[in-house]
Amino acid sequence: MAMAEASRTSEARRDAVFGRWVIFSPARSRRPTDLKSHGPANPSPGDGAPKPSCPFCLGRESECAPEIFRVPAPEASSPWRIRVIENLFPALRRDAEPPAPEEGEKPVGAGECAVRGFGFHDVVIETPRHEVRLWDLDAEGVGDVLLAYARRVQQLAEHPAVKYVQVFKNHGASAGASMAHSHSQMIGTPFVPPSVTSRLNCMKEVFERSGECSLCEIQSKDILVSKTHNFSAIVPFAASYPFETWIIPRQHSSYFHEIDQDKVSDLGSLLRSMLQKLCKQLNDPPFNYMIHSAPFGLSSSCLLYTHWFLQIVPQLSVTGGFEMGSGCYINPVFPEDAAKILREIDCS
Amino acid sequence: MAMAEASRTSEARRDAVFGRWVIFSPARSRRPTDLKSHGPANPSPGDGAPKPSCPFCLGRESECAPEIFRVPAPEASSPWRIRVIENLFPALRRDAEPPAPEEGEKPVGAGECAVRGFGFHDVVIETPRHEVRLWDLDAEGVGDVLLAYARRVQQLAEHPAVKYVQVFKNHGASAGASMAHSHSQMIGTPFVPPSVTSRLNCMKEVFERSGECSLCEIQSKDILVSKTHNFSAIVPFAASYPFETWIIPRQHSSYFHEIDQDKVSDLGSLLRSMLQKLCKQLNDPPFNYMIHSAPFGLSSSCLLYTHWFLQIVPQLSVTGGFEMGSGCYINPVFPEDAAKILREIDCS
Ligand SMILES: Nc1ncnc2c1ncn2[C@@H]1O[C@H](COP(=O)(O)OP(=O)(O)O[C@H]2O[C@H](CO)[C@@H](O)[C@H](O)[C@H]2O)[C@@H](O)[C@H]1O
Ligand SMILES: Nc1ncnc2c1ncn2[C@@H]1O[C@H](COP(=O)(O)OP(=O)(O)O[C@H]2O[C@H](CO)[C@@H](O)[C@H](O)[C@H]2O)[C@@H](O)[C@H]1O
Repeated sequence: MAMAEASRTSEARRDAVFGRWVIFSPARSRRPTDLKSHGPANPSPGDGAPKPSCPFCLGRESECAPEIFRVPAPEASSPWRIRVIENLFPALRRDAEPPAPEEGEKPVGAGECAVRGFGFHDVVIETPRHEVRLWDLDAEGVGDVLLAYARRVQQLAEHPAVKYVQVFKNHGASAGASMAHSHSQMIGTPFVPPSVTSRLNCMKEVFERSGECSLCEIQSKDILVSKTHNFSAIVPFAASYPFETWIIPRQHSSYFHEIDQDKVSDLGSLLRSMLQKLCKQLNDPPFNYMIHSAPFGLSSSCLLYTHWFLQIVPQLSVTGGFEMGSGCYINPVFPEDAAKILREIDCS
Repeated sequence: MAMAEASRTSEARRDAVFGRWVIFSPARSRRPTDLKSHGPANPSPGDGAPKPSCPFCLGRESECAPEIFRVPAPEASSPWRIRVIENLFPALRRDAEPPAPEEGEKPVGAGECAVRGFGFHDVVIETPRHEVRLWDLDAEGVGDVLLAYARRVQQLAEHPAVKYVQVFKNHGASAGASMAHSHSQMIGTPFVPPSVTSRLNCMKEVFERSGECSLCEIQSKDILVSKTHNFSAIVPFAASYPFETWIIPRQHSSYFHEIDQDKVSDLGSLLRSMLQKLCKQLNDPPFNYMIHSAPFGLSSSCLLYTHWFLQIVPQLSVTGGFEMGSGCYINPVFPEDAAKILREIDCS
């Protein structure tokens, strides 16, 4: 990477999906620090040992909030392989009265508004075993977790007051996780969240100007990490974070939850290999992944420019006031360099 | 706070400045964790001792990147009180060729674009003494730091290729700081950053609908923390972070850097007391503050709805994939409750 660094100077790039500016500055990675690093901290190995007190472990199901559904294990070895349960400390409550469609938003001051905290907040327990990480499962096992997401999103999509479902995973304390046992979450909101709105606006603008869907257009070879029959894994042209990657369906598709059995196995194998690559290259970093899909009930003209994808972000450093204030990120690693490094790691 | 918690259930609010949805969920603060907390970590006391190796200390000026200007100390005790210097590891480079106005943005793919990494990245050393924190200075001293920001922004505003200057401070490693010695930074960008664009769009929409500037309208008593002749300090109605506060000029004003000597002393005393309150109530937390001003060269009709303010955000927890994916924050503390607590702390 030293060579790549030396050969490049700063550049600012704007992407065609979020419309966000990012500053690429390899020189930044050489700055000194006299404060203790809060960077890559991997809590997993120590925390991976079976914990007698973990409510997500096999046999402690009664300590969890109610189960929504389970995926049974193929043999009798365990009564379940995946459980989708309610979050015991939900950000939004399924028992709150949903805002009536007309009432919707109650204005408080000019432009401000408030709605009751209605919504769904679920947890997906990815394995009954405390020490198993998602990418320790086989490709089919990872595919089944993704299928469980899709199935639950399908259920939530039926609710007339749910506008969007954010599926996400936190791994490691520095990525926000409070529980070590491998799990992910989803939150169904009664409004379209801010980043979803700005992503749709940006993709719409690109489509109106060029007639193309931004994500169908991403095919540049130098940012490709890996490819399967149905998906591409890339480092995006204007990645906000070092070693951020996106897994994108190669065929235009707006909704993640419409994925079929065939594609889900393919996605499972690609997600697994991308997580293995990150773990190998970056020493098992804390990370988040997020599925970016379309809000429910879009008109067919909007479906032309919305294209779902899965974003994986390793947490390698703490961001500061510049990013917080401006929304513009400083990334010390050029996407072309990150992609090259990730391409070269063998995870077979 | 226990009482306030018990009496409230979840609510979602959208603010009139950024147009962002925030979920308020007091129940979330009771969730357990089996991972080590990376929450409030205050690196300052230990790191506050004079460091023989700190380039920001008195006497080590030659180890810094070039000085832009200094504010002399009133007595001969020290050759300077504040120094504004170039960042030695700049994200954007003042020696890069600025993008020509017509050339501006070089399209790469549909909607993507890249520009050379031109810009300014400066550091403001707030005191010559390693162990002094910003709020240890007297009100006038804090005012002088703010005046140094304003003076430097005025200089950068003269450059035709600089579109915006983000002024910010990182305090503590969990807030991103790499240097312990009290300092802040500013970055002048050749583009308008994403959050600035969305803030302006939101305030414009409010103005077109109501004829009012969103920030002139904020006067609700229950979220007020403190007030001076020229400024209000509030917890915003839809605060993204627990105990986030905003200091807002009471008179409509678009540009921070047009602040006058009178107002700057007033702002210095309010900023100092707000930082003291946070330090006292939250046990010297890591924090960031950001000045949100208007991009340069706005038309006079845009000036009607842009209003600068200073945002202070203590870093009390790590956010996760939900916030990262959706742009929607989960805040366990209602603004009314945070404001009440901050109001009651005596910092005289
Ligand atoms: N017995 C039980 N039954 C059912 N559910 C249980 C349970 N015990 C705990 N839970 C839930 O399990 C979840 C575990 O989630 P994570 O570890 O991914 O992060 P968490 O949601 O705590 O917060 C991170 O993610 C959120 C969302 O991004 C951020 O707001 C936050 O700052 C960050 O720390 C928690 O939400 C918790 O409420
Ligand atoms: N001798 C010297 N002369 C001049 N300057 C010197 C110097 N030695 C060090 N510096 C500069 O001093 C600055 C100190 O800044 P901070 O401690 O506020 O955070 P930093 O910019 O490192 O990164 C934090 O803030 C940025 C911006 O928000 C985030 O991108 C990042 O992730 C986060 O850690 C650094 O930018 C460094 O380059």
